[in-house]
Amino acid sequence: MRLIAFQHEGRAALGARLGDDVVALADVVPGLPQDPSEALAALNLPEGAPALAAKLANAPRRPLKGLTLLPVVPRPGKVICIGLNYALHAKEGGNPIPDYPAVFFRGPTSLAAPGEPLLRPKVSDKFDYEAELAIVIGKRARHLTEAEALGCVAGYTCMNEGSVRDYQRKSAQWTMGKNFDRTGGLGPEIVTPDELPQGPNALRITSRLNGEVMQDSHTSDMIFTVPRILAILSEVMTLEPGDVIATGTPSGVGYARKPPVFMKDGDTVEIEIEGIGILSNPVRDEA
Amino acid sequence: MRLIAFQHEGRAALGARLGDDVVALADVVPGLPQDPSEALAALNLPEGAPALAAKLANAPRRPLKGLTLLPVVPRPGKVICIGLNYALHAKEGGNPIPDYPAVFFRGPTSLAAPGEPLLRPKVSDKFDYEAELAIVIGKRARHLTEAEALGCVAGYTCMNEGSVRDYQRKSAQWTMGKNFDRTGGLGPEIVTPDELPQGPNALRITSRLNGEVMQDSHTSDMIFTVPRILAILSEVMTLEPGDVIATGTPSGVGYARKPPVFMKDGDTVEIEIEGIGILSNPVRDEA
Repeated sequence: MRLIAFQHEGRAALGARLGDDVVALADVVPGLPQDPSEALAALNLPEGAPALAAKLANAPRRPLKGLTLLPVVPRPGKVICIGLNYALHAKEGGNPIPDYPAVFFRGPTSLAAPGEPLLRPKVSDKFDYEAELAIVIGKRARHLTEAEALGCVAGYTCMNEGSVRDYQRKSAQWTMGKNFDRTGGLGPEIVTPDELPQGPNALRITSRLNGEVMQDSHTSDMIFTVPRILAILSEVMTLEPGDVIATGTPSGVGYARKPPVFMKDGDTVEIEIEGIGILSNPVRDEA
Repeated sequence: MRLIAFQHEGRAALGARLGDDVVALADVVPGLPQDPSEALAALNLPEGAPALAAKLANAPRRPLKGLTLLPVVPRPGKVICIGLNYALHAKEGGNPIPDYPAVFFRGPTSLAAPGEPLLRPKVSDKFDYEAELAIVIGKRARHLTEAEALGCVAGYTCMNEGSVRDYQRKSAQWTMGKNFDRTGGLGPEIVTPDELPQGPNALRITSRLNGEVMQDSHTSDMIFTVPRILAILSEVMTLEPGDVIATGTPSGVGYARKPPVFMKDGDTVEIEIEGIGILSNPVRDEA
């Protein structure tokens, strides 16, 4: 199943995409909470996926075209990002292979919807792409073992974890460079785990800038696998429905290229992950 | 005016405290949104404070005692924390005086209500206190100048920015040590700026552990003042109603003491800020 978030009567709503059509989940699940994170909790994914899928067949549909899409989770309680999770990317930045993940957060104001322009900030010309597999949490979880960890996952999506490199380095904490408004694309849809029988660590991941391949790697190259990330994070904090975890980017980012490549007004950037889809965003200068 | 958040019919609600009583704001503001952050936006603080205060006089009251308090903003969109913002604290940790603030985020799962036990995690005995002045945002703001910055502030409160020191140092990013469940006290109330005519950078700030003074400083010693912090942050990101900004802690934290002092089950920790109040929390071992 493939879930999207879209604007509906001034509020965010969740839908399931079926080809070129969308079923609003509120039309098929009586009493579904309006808030998308609360709605995800009520859907009880991943176990709830077959029952939900069964309700979609005869439900009223609307065309996907014409909907205003939102980041697949519009207001996550937490957007948790893992740094340096691919060995070659750590190396290209001159960093050693970590034995514990570097973790930072993004705020909801940093997110962008599928197709929505990513904003190159006024104050910097060092706006870089980062292709990442993102996990969307479906169930509250704490102190997970690696063996049970995937049981809390509602699904997977693509993230372009857009980074403003000079602000990322203004202090030892990366948070500022990772939190410019509307620099992080999230989408296009949450793909439930049943659609990815190979699992989250067996997927090709690429990014393209104006059609040219910039990153081309595989999630099997992660230093910390998806179950390991979930175990490490949940040792510290409760993961809640709607929380998003970006699992790090492979080598090929713009700042480490010779010469460096940064995104600019008029560019188009795409993140593609095998079995999940393509997240495409134009780039615009901040007004 | 002094605003609290409390549990009401299974939801969070905002109230104004008048002595030993509380007026639920939903009782005096027709159509006030249920969500506390949306309610803060609707109150249009700080300008809206006099009109709201005028409505409280004849409103129905309930006793403060017996209410279940919540963190003053229960689910902030962002909890933005400034590190190393007092020169002596930077020095006690062996850090140089920064020329740009170190910024990291906490998630809502890391917060604790006034009076609620802070949890010493199972996996660490390095649980430390940090007294901080916290700003609560009342209005959306971006690209603020220092001169106009305080116009977006709904009020101020105390934060105990509880930190698990060994996890804070497991990577160069401090986020994990700052995000254990229920380690950060926030409250007891949001004090609107009209109650602090001396401004946010003229306040004594202290912490006490089991009655003993551990930190005793003054917000005039901040390296980055409150208006400067708001200008720097809003250069990067939109500040939204309900966002919380913790402005850094003065010297005297536990890990830098000789011998080090850490919080343990049975302790009581208090943060007191002049003109704002006392945030008191017991400490309990995680179950």
